[in-house]
Amino acid sequence: MAHQLLEGKKGIIFGALDENSIAWKTAEKIYEEGGRFVLTNAPIALRMGTINDLAKKCEAEIIPADATNLEDLALLFEQSKETLGGKLDFVLHSIGMSPNVRKGKDYGDLNYDWFLKTLDVSGISFHKVLQIAEKTESMNEWGSILALTYIAAQRTFPDYGDMAQAKAVLESIARSYGYRFAKNGKVRVNTISQSPTMTTAGTGVPGFDVFFDYADKMSPLGNAPAEDCANYIVMMFSDYTRRVTMQNLMHDGGFSSSGITEEIIAELSK
Amino acid sequence: MAHQLLEGKKGIIFGALDENSIAWKTAEKIYEEGGRFVLTNAPIALRMGTINDLAKKCEAEIIPADATNLEDLALLFEQSKETLGGKLDFVLHSIGMSPNVRKGKDYGDLNYDWFLKTLDVSGISFHKVLQIAEKTESMNEWGSILALTYIAAQRTFPDYGDMAQAKAVLESIARSYGYRFAKNGKVRVNTISQSPTMTTAGTGVPGFDVFFDYADKMSPLGNAPAEDCANYIVMMFSDYTRRVTMQNLMHDGGFSSSGITEEIIAELSK
Amino acid sequence: MAHQLLEGKKGIIFGALDENSIAWKTAEKIYEEGGRFVLTNAPIALRMGTINDLAKKCEAEIIPADATNLEDLALLFEQSKETLGGKLDFVLHSIGMSPNVRKGKDYGDLNYDWFLKTLDVSGISFHKVLQIAEKTESMNEWGSILALTYIAAQRTFPDYGDMAQAKAVLESIARSYGYRFAKNGKVRVNTISQSPTMTTAGTGVPGFDVFFDYADKMSPLGNAPAEDCANYIVMMFSDYTRRVTMQNLMHDGGFSSSGITEEIIAELSK
Amino acid sequence: MAHQLLEGKKGIIFGALDENSIAWKTAEKIYEEGGRFVLTNAPIALRMGTINDLAKKCEAEIIPADATNLEDLALLFEQSKETLGGKLDFVLHSIGMSPNVRKGKDYGDLNYDWFLKTLDVSGISFHKVLQIAEKTESMNEWGSILALTYIAAQRTFPDYGDMAQAKAVLESIARSYGYRFAKNGKVRVNTISQSPTMTTAGTGVPGFDVFFDYADKMSPLGNAPAEDCANYIVMMFSDYTRRVTMQNLMHDGGFSSSGITEEIIAELSK
Repeated sequence: MAHQLLEGKKGIIFGALDENSIAWKTAEKIYEEGGRFVLTNAPIALRMGTINDLAKKCEAEIIPADATNLEDLALLFEQSKETLGGKLDFVLHSIGMSPNVRKGKDYGDLNYDWFLKTLDVSGISFHKVLQIAEKTESMNEWGSILALTYIAAQRTFPDYGDMAQAKAVLESIARSYGYRFAKNGKVRVNTISQSPTMTTAGTGVPGFDVFFDYADKMSPLGNAPAEDCANYIVMMFSDYTRRVTMQNLMHDGGFSSSGITEEIIAELSK
Repeated sequence: MAHQLLEGKKGIIFGALDENSIAWKTAEKIYEEGGRFVLTNAPIALRMGTINDLAKKCEAEIIPADATNLEDLALLFEQSKETLGGKLDFVLHSIGMSPNVRKGKDYGDLNYDWFLKTLDVSGISFHKVLQIAEKTESMNEWGSILALTYIAAQRTFPDYGDMAQAKAVLESIARSYGYRFAKNGKVRVNTISQSPTMTTAGTGVPGFDVFFDYADKMSPLGNAPAEDCANYIVMMFSDYTRRVTMQNLMHDGGFSSSGITEEIIAELSK
Repeated sequence: MAHQLLEGKKGIIFGALDENSIAWKTAEKIYEEGGRFVLTNAPIALRMGTINDLAKKCEAEIIPADATNLEDLALLFEQSKETLGGKLDFVLHSIGMSPNVRKGKDYGDLNYDWFLKTLDVSGISFHKVLQIAEKTESMNEWGSILALTYIAAQRTFPDYGDMAQAKAVLESIARSYGYRFAKNGKVRVNTISQSPTMTTAGTGVPGFDVFFDYADKMSPLGNAPAEDCANYIVMMFSDYTRRVTMQNLMHDGGFSSSGITEEIIAELSK
Repeated sequence: MAHQLLEGKKGIIFGALDENSIAWKTAEKIYEEGGRFVLTNAPIALRMGTINDLAKKCEAEIIPADATNLEDLALLFEQSKETLGGKLDFVLHSIGMSPNVRKGKDYGDLNYDWFLKTLDVSGISFHKVLQIAEKTESMNEWGSILALTYIAAQRTFPDYGDMAQAKAVLESIARSYGYRFAKNGKVRVNTISQSPTMTTAGTGVPGFDVFFDYADKMSPLGNAPAEDCANYIVMMFSDYTRRVTMQNLMHDGGFSSSGITEEIIAELSK
């Protein structure tokens, strides 16, 4: 399926790491749909990943940038416009990392320097991206900016730790900056709240399999795979969704609206 | 803009009345995108409207049906499949009417027969459409069913009267039947909560102009016009949104996420 | 625990059936707190229950009334004011019944006359109570009106059937009429969304035990028992909550904000 | 009105500054209701305020503590238990400060060190309070912990700046830690989302009068005054609300559920 939905559109994709990541699959899909873009990630992440394969496949340039660093971001936006030959139509923010979760800190024993780090990397970085995009006048009118989030911003998932707060910040920024960018540039800003996905990030977490299976059984259409998320992102970047802004969009097979399902009841009745 | 997003897809559109109605503009847009469909409306509405022009333009057959009548609906689905040559991929429900609002009944002086009528026509009719669609095995897998709603289901708009309850029922049905149809047929069911629109229905209401202007100023991207709503519906009928279900999707220029805007403050500071 | 929180306050309690019902326990609690009231229920329900014991214990008069019948309601309000010696300060609506659920109709095979009945009895009856209360000028300023609801209005619970729609109507009426009653009489109107409770109504449903246990494990403080709900209602009827209106208040041990709990994960890991 | 609702209960109140602040009025009210407590605030705030008058009136000790400083908090909890003669039953967090808002930084020109400061002082401080309360085993079973928040966490209010994100963090912490504290200690954690109030903090903001008036007209029961908020807090600290947890409770005269009001329409029709 490809309809040249993004023909002539240019953008930046943050966070493609390896072929399991949503940003990776989104890049492939955007390319198929005619969009052109710059790939970016933190220098250290770039060393670990295999992003060169993706860049080659998508005719994309890679520009390293630490999304928490304002100078890196300013350079990224300026160089992207130069490389792509004009202003941008889309930006995807797919960045999240919590030192507390990584190091297994209990939610009742958080390290607060790390907590700030979690918020800075996973939440505030989105504000930085937006602020620099605006200051560098990088966005075309009716452009579309998205960040990936998770329903832990609304409900508690014990293993998600302080990432819940980071996602709450992220979604709040989408509303606050969405207001501003609508007024100043007719740009829309939204978040997509995605099912748990079998990405490299996800699979590392202990007990993730049981949880993934629970979410799948609690989602009447099943967990949304990364490929479908890529399609949804394409739509949100296309001109078919121009008046949708400041929203948190559930892409979850119905999980968020399910109180219980027959599968879970069956499982618990065993 | 047209990308043949709905090529090969078949469906039914309820509620196209005249060229200002959202269903009308959606029909035009779906046709441009390659979708084929049957137009339907209540016999009395058909007599009042100019739907023949639309039907001609879109190569669509018109099949009258009272959406509260199960036999009408069963015939409609059977004939639609025959006419279109196969099962359906999409259904649009754009039906709403309140005798209490029409006749200017105060919310503290409702006629309860009319209240039930409001709920039946504007809310339960959606369940009937879904139930008949399922019983007649009319939907293809990964089909998409939509109803149009309004934010009065969440917040009070005094002039909206008992239509607020009808929209609450409508959105609730989308969740309940969405669960069922996901399980039984991989069909998704959602509602789109649309900005106030300058349709024939809207313009009749006293004070609508002031209200429309208020909503416009409270929406950072402005009220979403009917054309944009048509585009959004196309997107929700396409294969790019397969895992979105049981959701109420705000298509409102940001109204729902705005607590106040500078325009309203300026207006009130005069 | 009793602090004479409702001393001098008068009201009506709908829906006390037997000693397991929330309305019953609420009546006992209100009495302890100094409130005086009339008990009411449908004539047929009164014959089945043992409400006389409750009435004796609480020095309450019983006035039968079908909550869907406007004349019954008008009489009820007039007689209640007479009996209690003045206008009312509180009303509790605890009424719900679905013929479709009772008779085991599948959600894809609903009887639509019964669906309307469900909405009328369980939802619209609340509007009737409010409209009659206002027309008969029965409420004191800063009065408080409550209805009991369930989270099925927001998320799908397959066995809850068309009661989900009834609760959506009920909560919507609380917002719409809450607006009106605030303006016209400084009366507040809210709904309390209560945990599943081991009432007579609850225990009849097949599979209820498994579901009750699931909800309990998904609620960090456990399912809220009826006694605690009675306390919460007392609070909402007291003068400590005067500015809370048009809200749906979750009284559920945290269920609504829990995405998953360790207990459920443990259960599913077996 | 006083019913000794908090007799025998002990706690800590953060954030009482002067007699207009909500925490101040809450302290007075809790005292009337029989509760005993320690007052705390940042050393610099204590110098500016007149908290000694309050302390005298309420027989309360003042223990200075920077709510972002773990050692200060540990000392505070230990000394409070000593002073009050036992474990605690309630804690009120009423702390908020944004350097970006104070210094008039535009939302598109934020200083990011200050942004982190905003989140640390106004949001993460709540986690620190909770974590220290748990580690020092300071809370009795069925204790109640509250933080004050604002609807800017859900909808955009342009002048509220990065405080919107701080409130989003705050509310998210209430859910995450509420889960934990429910499991580990049967302690409930909630936030109260309060109307704009004519506090010293509020009145400093330019254009606040127009905004206050707008919110008042958009609230069917009017903006909730600080005194009513104090009453509501008393109820949430009492044993009448034991199973309410992980909730954000709107105390706003109906603002959050109002889409438009006749007053605003009248104002805009001029």
